[in-house]
Amino acid sequence: MTQALLNYLDTHVEIIEKRLDQLVPIQKGDDKLLYLAARHALLGGGKRLRPILTLATAEMFGTHSCNDILDAACALEMVHTYSMIHDDLPCMDDDDYRRGQLTVHRQFDEGLAVLAGDYLLTYAFEILADLTTMDSIKKIKLISILSQRCGGKGMIGGQVMDLQFEGKTLQLSQLQMLHLKKTAALITASLEFGGIISDATSEQLKYLTTFGEKIGLTFQIVDDILDVTSSQMKHGRQTSSDILNNKSTYVTVLGMEKAKLYAQDCYAEALNILNHLDYDTTILKQLADFVIERNK
Amino acid sequence: MTQALLNYLDTHVEIIEKRLDQLVPIQKGDDKLLYLAARHALLGGGKRLRPILTLATAEMFGTHSCNDILDAACALEMVHTYSMIHDDLPCMDDDDYRRGQLTVHRQFDEGLAVLAGDYLLTYAFEILADLTTMDSIKKIKLISILSQRCGGKGMIGGQVMDLQFEGKTLQLSQLQMLHLKKTAALITASLEFGGIISDATSEQLKYLTTFGEKIGLTFQIVDDILDVTSSQMKHGRQTSSDILNNKSTYVTVLGMEKAKLYAQDCYAEALNILNHLDYDTTILKQLADFVIERNK
Repeated sequence: MTQALLNYLDTHVEIIEKRLDQLVPIQKGDDKLLYLAARHALLGGGKRLRPILTLATAEMFGTHSCNDILDAACALEMVHTYSMIHDDLPCMDDDDYRRGQLTVHRQFDEGLAVLAGDYLLTYAFEILADLTTMDSIKKIKLISILSQRCGGKGMIGGQVMDLQFEGKTLQLSQLQMLHLKKTAALITASLEFGGIISDATSEQLKYLTTFGEKIGLTFQIVDDILDVTSSQMKHGRQTSSDILNNKSTYVTVLGMEKAKLYAQDCYAEALNILNHLDYDTTILKQLADFVIERNK
Repeated sequence: MTQALLNYLDTHVEIIEKRLDQLVPIQKGDDKLLYLAARHALLGGGKRLRPILTLATAEMFGTHSCNDILDAACALEMVHTYSMIHDDLPCMDDDDYRRGQLTVHRQFDEGLAVLAGDYLLTYAFEILADLTTMDSIKKIKLISILSQRCGGKGMIGGQVMDLQFEGKTLQLSQLQMLHLKKTAALITASLEFGGIISDATSEQLKYLTTFGEKIGLTFQIVDDILDVTSSQMKHGRQTSSDILNNKSTYVTVLGMEKAKLYAQDCYAEALNILNHLDYDTTILKQLADFVIERNK
């Protein structure tokens, strides 16, 4: 990772986390645990890849940064966090740790974890609807794309397939379909957000979508590889729940070496797509580098 | 209940259920269980009070009925159904039955119940964003009000309070606050939907909000009374989980007789508010009658 990208990530992660902290403040009252539980997951670290992709895409198009763009990016991080909270539940992946800290249902309780997830999902839509300077047509486009990417034909559908596939040996095509929905869909939405905000053409949006799918798959393949190669300390969680839950992964389906090659292929395809965009794609390219080179 | 209202309910329930069936069709593929689980809850009966309130309010204002209004009303029923699915989970109220049939987590499994709820919530926002003939400004108003009414300061906040209050003896004011959020907020949204769709003035919307709060509370008080008085056969569920979970109810806080009087008070206040609306409020009045007179 270049020093320039490191600086870029540091700066943007700080801005995003500061805003997330403001958007979900500590509260008093009988419902205060809801906000503590949501903050536990939302502010407990993370790469902030999705909001950074939105900001980087908008910057690429030369869109003047403003509070509305930051808030739209934060809405994506909230949806991502909700999906993590629900995925970690005992009735799903049953994970005790995430990013080196207890998962929400372990730190608090299961009921609160379900509700904290519900809250972050609902709040993401509220944030988008209430953006102050963006016109309604654009806000509707964001809400439409987000609800589709994280709905039954997107992230939630992927999670259902994930549960259904437990204990089964999958074909590569099935694994692909699963992760296009479960992992890539929200990453795709993050790029599309940047495009929609910047009045991208439908052709440009299509390239952003495909780039999102490719780095989304790359992200998942790398995740599967790291699940095997990383120690608990490095990866911030215990033995992979995928392995414990007997799930097919790119490593179990392809083998380690072919999985690594496949990640390289997806990454190369992603970079190739960027050539179609007549803008300075340096940051998006470096973010693709980050996705394939990351070690946690 | 008058024959006129019975006919009104029959006609509207049929229209709503037909549309819900179209909106969440049976699907093939590896994610088909998601749709079966959602349909199990969504099409398993129910009063359809929330969508009917939206349709009745729009009719009161003389708004020409169209597919968009019906779909907006159906989105409310989806949000209501999601909240029921999640409330019934073992980590929440732990209910095995609802409306005389197994709850989603008992008919399918817990993971699928969490995801079916997530799906219906997300889909509600997708439906609103994708309404075909409504202008974006109005769609944003609907999405904003829905996300607020069912968010942390609304329904979800109420559910958190409900969990926190378990085993505690509440003051009437606490019970009120809980149910204004947990039960009344979405009923309020249903009336506000009808108002927003019909370009109601902010004053008219305020009356609709207060009417919603009053019939929402009436609804809850009657619910608490029915929990005690109804047999499993009549009420369609087993011994009340509220009682099993040692929750305060209007009956435990006020006693049965005072609870009945209090329901009458709320109902009377609701009717009183309708007098401020210069429209034919017959149907809304009859729906308030239905809320207080219902026996299931």
